[in-house]
This record gives sequence, C-alpha cells and structure tokens, in this order.
Amino acid sequence: MTEFTPTPADQFTFGLWTVGSIGRDPFGEPTRKPLSAPYIVQRLAELGAYGVNLHDNDLVPIDASAAERDRLVSDFKAALNDHGLKVPMATTNLFTDPAFKDGAFTSADARVRAYALQKTMLSMDLGHELGADVYDFWGGREGTEVDAGGKLLDSLAWFRDSLNFLADYSESQGYNYKFVLEPKPNEPRGDIFFPTAGSMLGFIATLDKPDRFGVNPEFAHDTMAGLNFAHAVAQVIDAGKLFHIDLNDQKMGRFDQDLRFGAENIKTAFFLVKLLEDTHYSGMKHFDAHALRTEDEAGVWAFAKGCMRTYLMLKEKARQFNDDSEIQAALSAYRVEDSELEALSKKFSPENAQALKSRTFDRSALGTRGPGLEHLDQLTIDLILGMR
Amino acid sequence: MTEFTPTPADQFTFGLWTVGSIGRDPFGEPTRKPLSAPYIVQRLAELGAYGVNLHDNDLVPIDASAAERDRLVSDFKAALNDHGLKVPMATTNLFTDPAFKDGAFTSADARVRAYALQKTMLSMDLGHELGADVYDFWGGREGTEVDAGGKLLDSLAWFRDSLNFLADYSESQGYNYKFVLEPKPNEPRGDIFFPTAGSMLGFIATLDKPDRFGVNPEFAHDTMAGLNFAHAVAQVIDAGKLFHIDLNDQKMGRFDQDLRFGAENIKTAFFLVKLLEDTHYSGMKHFDAHALRTEDEAGVWAFAKGCMRTYLMLKEKARQFNDDSEIQAALSAYRVEDSELEALSKKFSPENAQALKSRTFDRSALGTRGPGLEHLDQLTIDLILGMR
Amino acid sequence: MTEFTPTPADQFTFGLWTVGSIGRDPFGEPTRKPLSAPYIVQRLAELGAYGVNLHDNDLVPIDASAAERDRLVSDFKAALNDHGLKVPMATTNLFTDPAFKDGAFTSADARVRAYALQKTMLSMDLGHELGADVYDFWGGREGTEVDAGGKLLDSLAWFRDSLNFLADYSESQGYNYKFVLEPKPNEPRGDIFFPTAGSMLGFIATLDKPDRFGVNPEFAHDTMAGLNFAHAVAQVIDAGKLFHIDLNDQKMGRFDQDLRFGAENIKTAFFLVKLLEDTHYSGMKHFDAHALRTEDEAGVWAFAKGCMRTYLMLKEKARQFNDDSEIQAALSAYRVEDSELEALSKKFSPENAQALKSRTFDRSALGTRGPGLEHLDQLTIDLILGMR
Amino acid sequence: MTEFTPTPADQFTFGLWTVGSIGRDPFGEPTRKPLSAPYIVQRLAELGAYGVNLHDNDLVPIDASAAERDRLVSDFKAALNDHGLKVPMATTNLFTDPAFKDGAFTSADARVRAYALQKTMLSMDLGHELGADVYDFWGGREGTEVDAGGKLLDSLAWFRDSLNFLADYSESQGYNYKFVLEPKPNEPRGDIFFPTAGSMLGFIATLDKPDRFGVNPEFAHDTMAGLNFAHAVAQVIDAGKLFHIDLNDQKMGRFDQDLRFGAENIKTAFFLVKLLEDTHYSGMKHFDAHALRTEDEAGVWAFAKGCMRTYLMLKEKARQFNDDSEIQAALSAYRVEDSELEALSKKFSPENAQALKSRTFDRSALGTRGPGLEHLDQLTIDLILGMR
Repeated sequence: MTEFTPTPADQFTFGLWTVGSIGRDPFGEPTRKPLSAPYIVQRLAELGAYGVNLHDNDLVPIDASAAERDRLVSDFKAALNDHGLKVPMATTNLFTDPAFKDGAFTSADARVRAYALQKTMLSMDLGHELGADVYDFWGGREGTEVDAGGKLLDSLAWFRDSLNFLADYSESQGYNYKFVLEPKPNEPRGDIFFPTAGSMLGFIATLDKPDRFGVNPEFAHDTMAGLNFAHAVAQVIDAGKLFHIDLNDQKMGRFDQDLRFGAENIKTAFFLVKLLEDTHYSGMKHFDAHALRTEDEAGVWAFAKGCMRTYLMLKEKARQFNDDSEIQAALSAYRVEDSELEALSKKFSPENAQALKSRTFDRSALGTRGPGLEHLDQLTIDLILGMR
Repeated sequence: MTEFTPTPADQFTFGLWTVGSIGRDPFGEPTRKPLSAPYIVQRLAELGAYGVNLHDNDLVPIDASAAERDRLVSDFKAALNDHGLKVPMATTNLFTDPAFKDGAFTSADARVRAYALQKTMLSMDLGHELGADVYDFWGGREGTEVDAGGKLLDSLAWFRDSLNFLADYSESQGYNYKFVLEPKPNEPRGDIFFPTAGSMLGFIATLDKPDRFGVNPEFAHDTMAGLNFAHAVAQVIDAGKLFHIDLNDQKMGRFDQDLRFGAENIKTAFFLVKLLEDTHYSGMKHFDAHALRTEDEAGVWAFAKGCMRTYLMLKEKARQFNDDSEIQAALSAYRVEDSELEALSKKFSPENAQALKSRTFDRSALGTRGPGLEHLDQLTIDLILGMR
Repeated sequence: MTEFTPTPADQFTFGLWTVGSIGRDPFGEPTRKPLSAPYIVQRLAELGAYGVNLHDNDLVPIDASAAERDRLVSDFKAALNDHGLKVPMATTNLFTDPAFKDGAFTSADARVRAYALQKTMLSMDLGHELGADVYDFWGGREGTEVDAGGKLLDSLAWFRDSLNFLADYSESQGYNYKFVLEPKPNEPRGDIFFPTAGSMLGFIATLDKPDRFGVNPEFAHDTMAGLNFAHAVAQVIDAGKLFHIDLNDQKMGRFDQDLRFGAENIKTAFFLVKLLEDTHYSGMKHFDAHALRTEDEAGVWAFAKGCMRTYLMLKEKARQFNDDSEIQAALSAYRVEDSELEALSKKFSPENAQALKSRTFDRSALGTRGPGLEHLDQLTIDLILGMR
Repeated sequence: MTEFTPTPADQFTFGLWTVGSIGRDPFGEPTRKPLSAPYIVQRLAELGAYGVNLHDNDLVPIDASAAERDRLVSDFKAALNDHGLKVPMATTNLFTDPAFKDGAFTSADARVRAYALQKTMLSMDLGHELGADVYDFWGGREGTEVDAGGKLLDSLAWFRDSLNFLADYSESQGYNYKFVLEPKPNEPRGDIFFPTAGSMLGFIATLDKPDRFGVNPEFAHDTMAGLNFAHAVAQVIDAGKLFHIDLNDQKMGRFDQDLRFGAENIKTAFFLVKLLEDTHYSGMKHFDAHALRTEDEAGVWAFAKGCMRTYLMLKEKARQFNDDSEIQAALSAYRVEDSELEALSKKFSPENAQALKSRTFDRSALGTRGPGLEHLDQLTIDLILGMR
C-alpha cells in the first residue's frame, strides 16, 4: 500500500538516540552495536524521514577534544547535506553523567547548576550550527526521591531562573529558538518536577517571556501517569503551546517503555492523530521511541518504518471518519445546539445573567436524552478495525 | 495529649457531604442514616473545627420549594450562629442529577451548559448569603469516556467561557469570591478534563482574569495519578495559587478512596504538612474525606477527630524536624552554595554567559560527592516513627 | 456484514445486572429505569445471545415474600422458555446489603459469615432450579481497608471453610455445580483478598476438593492491576482451570469501568480472543459490563450488540492471522527448534544433566540473533487495522 | 537506642548485588565504584547481618576462567569464614547477558533454554559449595512485549519442565535445596509471566514436586502492581509457602525502585513486620534493595543500616501493639464470635446446612453495627507515629 510510505512532507523525525539505542536496560548489557550518526542519517533519509534530532552528546562525546568535535560535526553535516535531512530540534544531555545524579538546573549543588547552564549554552550553539529552531528541555533528573532535602520550592525557582537565562541567551545570540518543555512523571527519578503536560503549561505562565516557550508532550510520559494523552494534547493546543510532539507508546502505570508508535494504545493513537490532523498541526512529529531490546539492526529499521506507517494508516482512518456519513450523523445527533442559550451563555452581562437565572429548564428531559455514545464508539471501533 | 486537640485557630474545615456521607458505593446501599446540617454544625463545633463547607444541594435539595429552601437555610444559619462555625467555601453540585451525566459546563448539549450556569449563579448567591469567600469548581463530570464525540477542544472553550462568565457575575454582584479549581484525573468519568493540579495552573493562564482564580489541590486526586502530592502543592505555592487545600488520603492507581487524612501515605502527609507550615499557608485546611462505609455514626466522629489529630501530630513533627540539630546538619551538608557561581547564574547578561562558558568544572568531583540523602531520609523516618 | 451477527452457537451470555444496570455511580443518581427480567430475556434472545446469568437478588429482591419469589421465578422461567435462553451461571449477591459491609465469608462477625452461607445455599437452590451448572463466587467485599483488624489469616481460613462447605452442599444436593472463583484487586474494598487470577489458582490448591473449582477471570479486573489479561488467562488455561470468563474492558490503574468488550485495549482483546479460539475454549463468554451511564435504553442494546460484534470481528482476525503466510513465516523465523537439545532438556536424567553441563554454547550468537518481533508486531497491527 | 542494632540472630541478609550496586540506570552511567565481594562480607558482618546472597555472576564473571573462578570463590569463602557470615540463598543471573534478551527458560530459542539449564545447574553447584540451602528463581526476562509470538502456553510448559528438571537435579546431587519462586509484574519485560505472589502459588500447584517449591515474595514487586503486600504475604503463609522474603520499598504503579525498607509505605511495612513476627516466620529477611544512585559508599552503608534499623523499630511497635490494652479492646470489639454459628459453619453436614438454612438472621442489626475501624486505625497511626 504505497500511500503509507512516508515522504519528507510528512515531517517525521527521529532522534539519534532512538534508532541508535543499543538496547541496554537496568538488568542487561547492550544487545546492539552503536551506529554512527552519518549512517543513521543515510538510513532515515532512505526511509522517508524529514529530520533527525539530537542531544549534544549523541553526536559529540562529553570528553571529546575540540578537534574531535569538529570532525564529528563536519561528518554529520556532510551526511545531512548528502541525504537532504534536517535537524529541526536539539537538546542537552543533562542526565547521563554522574555530575547530574541529583538534577541539573535543580541540583542542590550550585556548581552543578552553573555547569548545566554552561553545557546547555554550548549545546544551543551546536544546535544552531546544525540549523535547529526548536530547543527542548527534558529535565531528566530534575526531581527527587527524598523530599527531606527541602529543596522543592528552591528547585522550581532555580529551574525558572535557568530557563529565563537561556531564553535571553538565545535572543542575545540571535538564535530565535522556540523552547519546548517536556514533562515526565517519574523515572529515572522517583518523582520528576512538572510531571505532566498540564504542569508545564502552568510553569510557563510563571516565566519572564512565556511566549518563547511551548510544551513538547510525549505520548508515553502522560500515559505513565494513567492520563489520556489526546486530552493532554488538546489542552496544549487550546493554550496555543503545541510547538513539538513526541510520539511513542506505553502501558499505563509502569516503567518507561518507549514502544513503537501505535503498538499499544491503538484507540488513543487514533484520536491523537485525528486531533493533530484536524487542527492542522504544522510542527514536527518526532518518534521518541526505540526498537525492543530483543531486536537486531534489522529490527531497528522495521521499528522506524512501523512508527511512520502506523501514523499514516491512522491518518487515513481519520479522513474516513470525517467522510463517513453514518458517523457524521451520530456526531450531529450527539450535539444539541441552541443559539439563544448559547448567546446568553457566551459572555457575561447583567442581562444575560438575569435571563439565564429566570429561565426554566426541563431537568428530566435533559437527563433522559440518549447521546448515542455507545453506538458512536462502536462505529469508531469498526472503523479502526477496518470493518467499515 | 492535649496539644493535639484542635481549635478554630487551626482553620480546619469539613464538608456537609463528608461527615454526612451515608456510605453508599457502586456495589452497596447506604450503611448510615443522613445527618441534618444543623446537627453536623453542632458536632463539628464541639470537635474544634473552624468551619463547614457545602454544595448547594447538601443543604437544599434540588427539588426544594422556595419555602423549604428558606427554612433549611435559616435553620443552618441559626446553627452556625449558635456554635460559632463559619462557611468559608461553597460549591455547586453539577454531578448528581442525571441532567449532568455527560458533563455540565462541557456537555455537548447547549441546554445543559446553560442550566449549569444558572445553577452555579444561584449557588453563588447562596454561598454569599452564608458568608463564603471562596468558591470551588470541581468538574465532577467534565470529561469523557468516548472521544469519538469530538468535543475536546470545544469543551475547553466552553469551560473557559463559563468561568469567565461567573467571575464577572461575582464581581457584578459584589461577591468578591476567590475561585478555586479542583483537579481530578478520573472517576466518575473515564478521563476528566484538567486531571492534575498542574493542568489547572495551565488553564488559569488562559482565563480573562487569572488573578481571580487559584487551585484547590486534593491529596487523593493527584495521588490517584501516582503523583507526589507535596510536589504538586509546591508548584501551586510557587505560582501563588494555593487558595484552598483538600486533605484526605488514597492509595495510588485505584478508585477514589477519600480516606482519613494521614491514613495511608504517612511520609507524603508529613512533607505536605511541613510545606504548609513552613510557608505559613493561611487558607482553610479542608478534609474532603469520609468515614469508611463499615462505620456507624461513632465511626464518623472518630474519623473527623483523627483527620485533625494527625495533622497536628505531623505539624509537631515538622517543628521537631526544624529544631533537630543532626537533621539540620545533614541538610547543610546536602546543599553546596557558591556565591560567585550563583551570582553568574541568577540572571542573564552577556558577561555572565561568557564567564560561565569559559569556566572549567571538575565533573568528576561533582559526580562523586555524596549528598547524604540515605542518612537524611533515615533520620526523617526515625522522626516520623517517634524514635528521635 | 452478516458474519458478525451472533447466534446462540457463539455461547455469548450477559448478566441481568449488566444490561439491566440503571447507571448509578458514586456521584450520581440513576439515569435509566429498571428493566424487568423477562424483558431482558426477550431482548437478549433477539440479539442472538445464548444465555443470561444472575445474582439471586437480580431476580428476587432480598426482602421478597415467598409468593413474590415464586411469581418472579415463574415469570422468568416462562420468558426463558419462550425465547430459548439458558441460565448457564448463577451467583450470590453478598455485597449490596449493609450486613455485608465488612465482608461476607470473611466478615469479622461470625453471624454475618453464617448468614452468607445461608444466603448462598438458597441462591444455589435457585440457580439449580434455573438450570445453571456453573456457580460463581465474586468476593465483592471480601477484603479490608484497615489491616489493624488483624483478620488476614483468619479471613483466608474462613473463606476456605465456606467454599469447602458449599462444595459439599452442592454434592449432597446432587447439583454438580462447577464453582468458579472471580478475582478482583480492589473496589469496593481498599484491598480485596485474592486480587488476581493467579491468586485464585493458588487458593484453589488449598481447598479440600480442588477439582470442583476453577477460575472466572475478568478482563477488567486483572487490567485494573496493570496486568496483561491474555497472560492471566493463559496461566488459567495451563492449569486446566478456565471454566468461565468475564469479558469487558478497562483502563489500567483506575476505578472499575466495566466498558464494552474491545472498547479500550484492542490489542489485548485480539490476543485474548485468539487464545480462546486457538485453544477451543468451550465455556461461556460472559460480558460482565454495562452501557455508559450517559446512555438511554437504546444505548444499552447498542452496547450489548457491540460486545458480541467486536468479539466476532476479532475472531475473524484471529483466523486471518493463522492463515497469513507472511505472518506465519515470521512466526517460524521467531522460533528456533533443536530436537537434540529439546530432548535433553525435557526431563531430568543424570545423563541428560551431564550432557547439558558439558555442552558448549555460543553465547554471542544467541545474543545477536534478531527474532524479528518488531516486524511481526507491525504485521499484527496492520492486520488489526484491517490493512492486510 | 541500642535495641535497634541488629545481630545475626535477626537473620537479616543482603545480596552482593544490593550493597554492591554501582548506581547505573537506563539514563545514566555508574556513580559508584564496584566493591569486592570479600569487602562486602566484612562490612555486612560489622553491621550485624547474618548472611549474604548472590547470583553466580555477582561473584564469578560469566567469562571467568576456571582458575579465576577458583580464586574468587576461595577468597569469598575465606572472607565468610573470617567474618562469620553465611550464604543462605543463591540464584542464577539469567538476564544480564544478551543471550537471555527474550527470556531464559521461556525463550523461543531452544538453545537458549538449554543453556539456561546448564547455567543454573552450575550455579546450583556453586551455591551448594557455599552452603546455601535456598535456591531462588527470579525470571528476570521470562515474559514478553509482543504476544504475537504466540509462545504464551509453550512458555509456561517450558518453565515447568525446567523447574521439574532442576528439582530432580538437586535431589540427584544430594543438595536438598528448597526452591523459591520470585514474582514480578513487569520490568525489564513489558509483561513478566507469573506477575504476582498469587500467580506463583498457582504455578507451584502444577509442578511435579510442589513440596520442594515455595514463594519468595518481594515487597516492591507486588507493590508495583498496586497490590497490598501484607495481603500477598498472608496468602503465601496460609499456603505454607513462605520460604524466603525480599524486603524493600516502592511507590505503586511505577518503575522498579528498590528503595530502602520502610522508606515509603510505612504502614504496610508495619503490618508486614507484625505479620512475620506474629507468625514466627523463621526464614531469612533479605533486603533486596540498593542505595539511591545519588549516594557514595557512605550512603550505601547508611542505606544498609537503615533497612535493618527500620525493621527492628517496626518490630518493637508490633510488640507495643500487642501489649496496648486500648488497642486490644478495640480488636475485641471488632470481632463478634458466636460459638453455635461457628460450629454450624465450620464443616458441612446435612444437619448443619439445614440448621443454617432455617435460621433467622437480623440483617438490619448486622448492617448497623459499628466495627470501630476508624478508631482502631487511628490508634494504629498514633502508635506508628510514636504518639502512644
């Protein structure tokens, strides 16, 4: 089915760390060999991706010499150029090195906080050099297991200071980054600050330049907390803050699985794709996932193809949903409009309030009306299963 | 131990619906008889509470005649007066009547949305008459099980319009309410909009008059989503939005248990009380919980006393923590200050950025330092267990 | 698509309490009127169901007079006869009446335990009269919120005594019931005894006549604990104990949702149906679910039809899976057989042990082999979505 | 408080892998240096532990030469002898090497299954040489992410064959091991077979020699599934299968945290200790946990001391609970005994059944009795907090 073969116009991206994952987990050694950045670029381009994202240390080891850095960056840029791939987003690794074991911008050690600022500025320089216009913050270790340390309120203030600092740095350098904040509830820390997409929206409102900042919600992360990811994204869209999105999958209430997009929560994935397509989301669709640790390299590329293929299949189903007359009739039946009442409710005025207060409503009729949601949901299941 | 006997100065409140719960659940009939509102007032006053909160229909049945309403309100006010109890907070029941089965302000039926506005205005009138200055919104049924209905984005807009309308109504009536939004992740709906405290902070930023609105976080609700409630409250405090708090308890990842405060998550309850006391929280401490369904009326009052007693015991432990020299030494050891680096990091300037970028950090030393958190946490456990 | 219209040969059953649910929840009043048992029988027969199951009090109110009981039973039997519906399974309501508020067979009150025995014997009499040959135990309130009561070990012993008693009663009456134990992790109790399908298997091993007892696993119940229901059922099948199954759906880690079968965990539902069909499960497929509380009666029947239709659609997909040559090739590639090693491993003998101990294995080759699971899983997703 | 200093008589054990954890996690490099086995032995002995447990590869690297193995074992035995520490339990590492990436005894690759048998026999030889009489099976990777592989039922059969084989091997070698099966719901696999303590009990009933096998329940593992660990252990005790126990801590519904015993679920830890002490559990109390990754070596020993100290503090509280007259009075009030009814209910006879069936019960009285559980639970909280 050729229509499910991606092209760059689909704006699918992967991270160097995703297809490059070597399959190590807390209980086992790596099962795959590292892949070089230029090789990843070549393969992703062949598969139809638009771009590749990275942490600073995905490309340049933390201990690299200046010469080594230059060589790695140069080879990577050559590969990008050769294969027509972009780097739309960059971010900082503030979690692998033991220096960050108790957080980066929220460490109780002022030296670690300063070092995190330094490392991020240098990484922003690199990202800009590679053409990135979105800069991501995933606070990998910004959290606690032990609240006796008493740093909760300080941590939030330190994190805010850091983001304000870096937004100004971006402007002063002429980088014009859009910043995206990526929430996660836990792992690797017991409790990570700003655990959900909503928390990040709340935090942005406290920053000096909130317009510079958006959210990078991740399917698996809100799902870990048992939340409905389509709902989370809807709130981010409503707030005008969906600058980027991380697509993958996950069972609720367990460790961070980073499964292939659509592999687990098929129905939520469908509603998410429908939401993104219906609202004409124009940002990158980034697959922040990795192949199962059981797999060899062939499994990695099967994984990458599968992420994109499933998105495109669900996009086609979203189109069918919008074109299906029985479904559209059920939707119309579900909604009861009343232009007079809607006019009175839309905006307060003393007259509107008085009119509403004096109105008589037929509570019983409102309570007995059948909205037809079981019917509508079954039609949706039929459609997802390809049975209509 | 007399020091754990509450007085009105402690600002503890209960809801009519909490101590008045008749013990019905999805699988069983009521186990307790209803208690009259004046009787509840009397008993709560005897126990040392400051106030009692209510939904409109906790006091006045939805079908009550005007005369019945007046009599019930009058009796209630007399009891409040007799026993010196306040009504600091009022709210609307937008969930019990079948009319609200698919939401109130977010119903797909425009008539239901209009009726919810009417009912809330009337309930605000009642709350004002009773002296309440905080008005709560718990969107009991503002959510979905079936996202095929396609109302996600509309629902957020409808909810915002409603809150904007009601804030203006409050002002026009001279009520000067502070509004508090109470999040919950699920139950009775499959997925409730604005599921966490953070989500509510994010939503407030989109309202016309955000200063009028704060959050009413509930211990059990964020805990249902497996989140750390002390962290959630810290973010609300950081944002200047802790106008009210609901205290109870709950195991993670299950149905809404509304357990006695401190009955389950003892350690988190301790850190929460410490946070509230250390930041001199001055709002109401509302116990939104109920006695176990197994209990008779004696069990209800044992429950109410226990909520307040445990708060006061934990408050005393928070004081001990702050006065414990070994704990304070461990805290000092945990924090590494560096005034030079903190000055450079606090606020961006080109000079600060350059100084930080050119600084050499000893990553290895940062990574090997032991913060002493196991030691500090064990001291905390000893203190909680009364063993120091 | 006529092939997805059920017939009695499909052995689908519903409970009187499922399609008869009136839509009450902890926060709201009923949204639907009760339906009479004969009417339910008629409608289920029209939809193609095989049978209808019941608790004693679904048919006969707990306070019914003997005459009322006889009339209700007689009318019900007439309807069964008229419409050709069976009653394959019966069970006892040991949870609605306040007498059972702290458990039935595990109550700390010896009188309650004795009353539970009485009520169950009478209900077994009724079930036998109606033709049931499976008798179910769902320990609705067999659990605790407060372990200080110290009854944990006693409760397990009391429960065992009760089941042993009732198995003997069945035999002495010539009823020949097969008993099925239905696990649930929590709700309405904080923690229910024997929370998972595995727990029930473990408990059966301690009974006097374990052959009389099997498990009645419920999709939603193990899912509430975040467990994979297909795995749970596989263990029950492996133990020879799958005597009955309850089909519905649920999001993990939250309140008991009892959603329409296949409405949420589509992939797990597919593997479950495949497992049941591949192993030629011959028992009843009981839909222990109910229509959303938003729905009117039309929604109830849409719900019931949807449960059966989705099962049949997934059964068709299971057939396709087994007939799909590319999928079967991927399955063959996944499995590595080695008849010599399998013979040595199958059963201990000193010679086999010695042969295995002296064997040289190529660990590196074993670790680098790619099992092709990403590919296989994507083929499965394609098949579920109707895209192959 | 000297009474909380452990001695070998307390039978506390640790694993080489627990205090020896180097602090690596999925997102970060090690934060601590490896400690040699003899050094661990010395330090644990100084702290008052009874013994140390191990996986084969905790002591002997998987690639070690025979000479290296002999030297490591010899040094370890010397240290055990010097410091008076025992090795009560041994187990096999069947999860670190990539060969086991898709399971060991349940791998789809027959060669891996055979190799797992070989490795386990050799590890049993080593354990016996070190004096262990308990042999543990934690099926680290015995599970799936992708059920399309269709190996569910085969896996259970393969696992059973392997355990039967190894039990016979133990007997034929004269090892007389008691085998313990350790359940876990997930991580590192998406879904691990036999996810809960109950599942293991159920599986044991299907083995050839069930008497040889018991359960090794782990606090954190059942807690990950949101289950009450004290309940799980009570079922294992009831079945006569508590041969070993793993103590640690964990928040529900998230990644495997392996926190210090008593660090999180204080109340459940109290009831667990009370259960173990009241039933005179005589096996090892093994702390299968590790210091937080933030910690240096000093934090490791603080962690180890804290595990034991908290157990002893809770043991003292269990004694107080049993000696507290107000609590004991509340317990007596909670239980209603009735010797006549208990005699009728204890065991079936036609006469007992008839007597129970003809009995009249006062349902209303049973339903209105107050069991005093809120009162009793608050007394327990007071006791835990050291306030009585």
